[in-house]
Amino acid sequence: MVRLAVDCMGGDHGPSVTLPACQAFLEAHPHAELILVGRAEALAPARGWPRCTLVEASEVVEMDDPVEVALRRKKDSSMRVAISQVKPGEGGQAAADACVSAGNTGALMAVSRYVLKTLQGIDRPAIATVMPNQKDGYTTVLDLGANVDCEPEHLLQFALMGSALVSAVEGKAQPSVGLLNIGEEAIKGSETIKKAGELLRSAANDGHLNFYGNVEGNDIFTGRTDIVVCDGFVGNVALKTAEGLASMLSSFIKQEFTRNIFTKLAAIVALPVLNHFKKRVDHRRYNGAALLGLRGLVFKSHGSADAFAFEQALNRAYDAARNRLLDRVHDRIVETLQALPSTDEAAAPGPVAKTA
Amino acid sequence: MVRLAVDCMGGDHGPSVTLPACQAFLEAHPHAELILVGRAEALAPARGWPRCTLVEASEVVEMDDPVEVALRRKKDSSMRVAISQVKPGEGGQAAADACVSAGNTGALMAVSRYVLKTLQGIDRPAIATVMPNQKDGYTTVLDLGANVDCEPEHLLQFALMGSALVSAVEGKAQPSVGLLNIGEEAIKGSETIKKAGELLRSAANDGHLNFYGNVEGNDIFTGRTDIVVCDGFVGNVALKTAEGLASMLSSFIKQEFTRNIFTKLAAIVALPVLNHFKKRVDHRRYNGAALLGLRGLVFKSHGSADAFAFEQALNRAYDAARNRLLDRVHDRIVETLQALPSTDEAAAPGPVAKTA
Repeated sequence: MVRLAVDCMGGDHGPSVTLPACQAFLEAHPHAELILVGRAEALAPARGWPRCTLVEASEVVEMDDPVEVALRRKKDSSMRVAISQVKPGEGGQAAADACVSAGNTGALMAVSRYVLKTLQGIDRPAIATVMPNQKDGYTTVLDLGANVDCEPEHLLQFALMGSALVSAVEGKAQPSVGLLNIGEEAIKGSETIKKAGELLRSAANDGHLNFYGNVEGNDIFTGRTDIVVCDGFVGNVALKTAEGLASMLSSFIKQEFTRNIFTKLAAIVALPVLNHFKKRVDHRRYNGAALLGLRGLVFKSHGSADAFAFEQALNRAYDAARNRLLDRVHDRIVETLQALPSTDEAAAPGPVAKTA
Repeated sequence: MVRLAVDCMGGDHGPSVTLPACQAFLEAHPHAELILVGRAEALAPARGWPRCTLVEASEVVEMDDPVEVALRRKKDSSMRVAISQVKPGEGGQAAADACVSAGNTGALMAVSRYVLKTLQGIDRPAIATVMPNQKDGYTTVLDLGANVDCEPEHLLQFALMGSALVSAVEGKAQPSVGLLNIGEEAIKGSETIKKAGELLRSAANDGHLNFYGNVEGNDIFTGRTDIVVCDGFVGNVALKTAEGLASMLSSFIKQEFTRNIFTKLAAIVALPVLNHFKKRVDHRRYNGAALLGLRGLVFKSHGSADAFAFEQALNRAYDAARNRLLDRVHDRIVETLQALPSTDEAAAPGPVAKTA
């Protein structure tokens, strides 16, 4: 049995999106349970739903709230209360296996970090998302905005956490990892990237990682590797650039097909094909980014998600929890960092605790 | 009168693409002249063309030649000889106003830098290209791969050079500049980006720049600013990511329309619309990246360019030369760096020479 905690107030649309998504999720997963967190009046429609617990929270982190406000002032926010559900209590058991929120990314990361703490061996949590690729599969990309100045060791940690995520959610034992660079040759890139390449190769030689080598921006979409690792600045730019291009192309296609009566007729004939295409690249299907490296599973939905998209984020969190993602990340980090001589004090020998 | 030097051997296809492009260019520009550089036998078809001078070069820089080979071993390469045409001779006059090559980027940058040197006040030349945007215009993006570890001062130099390029080629007196970041707020981003933002704001306050502020990856395609400035690593990833996504979407559209007899019929009806769309986003129309900050104009065509695409690169070089891009870059750098107290020794007071 998997139990998810849901921040029902987060995102641009709040309960009008999250509640229908939760309802659909419960119908699709007869063995799942939900903890719905939010203001009492907002949760009212969910009263009496099966396999549902309602937990009240009096405050809401707004999409434009600064991190400090979310962290210091709104201590009874739905976001924070939902995250707290995945923090183990005194018995070592948490109320929920994973938490999902569509709230603002900076606040979600900061509050998660504050409430849950990072796993030992992890300096910085990362945000991982998936993008569709030409092989009709997904490429998992991390980090996506949490860490702007990364050291080589962080990129290694991202690679390990990404591998754990893909092996948990997609069932691949040793997913391949590419290091995002500006050329395939090992001598390319900044000093940080070159050193990260050495660390990744060393981890691969020790059998801890399936490291492919350098990949380039286009390989996110060719699907050359299962995972693409980069610092948060580069990852955010790549993601936003892709979103911008997709949005431009989609508006151009619409413009072309609505230009005049003939193009409108053509649109009617082409509609089934265009709809099939649209469905195939529908970004809502890929909604649900994982915050990795915390002592608890947190998933972030796009703020503008509709009910269908939010349900996908719930599905991703469910799959991750069901496949013990937290243990897998922990195990990979422990075995790799203990074996690697090159990492710093983060990998100091000695017992590595999963919980504080 | 404008004279361009053309490396006819560069690119994946060499003279079979460059010569037809040159011929079309000459027909379209009755006042332009070309210096065609390459092996004698390769240039044979161009013998007797009007407004054409043939210059022999015995070697060719291959697309996979390391930079060292291009720089040290192939001293009589068509690339190097073509670049040398824009270097001023003893009388201060150069044989050509700009040079165009489809040869490999690393080699072209290294040889250009070695032969021409950088303008005073410029630490690192940059590569600038244009991408289509939602306003049916272009966004100029730089740097695109020449500089992986940039200081704030370099980003300021890129902003100035990009402004000179856009004002020369597009006739905008004060084009707007955005700093590529992971959020719009000034407090976002790495230390380098934050300091670059301060430098750009300071230059804008002094009237040297039309600085908009931070932009995000998607703004390359929304066209929020005329110019987007970033370091070469980020710019390269953004460009390649966009190329990868465009290529995936285009292959998906093809797959959808060729799925069965019904979709193929739909394709026939939709063909004029799809072709119009295709033409609108045709990357060949945007071919021709400028290498900025050198004491001579060098333009880089995509290696895989066909004759139509290579001709666009010739057009861009022609427009830049005709509108005195070199002087404009020089003037902007001089007036801004002399006025800014915050830049380092690169901006030391005293006369700033355009040629050594």
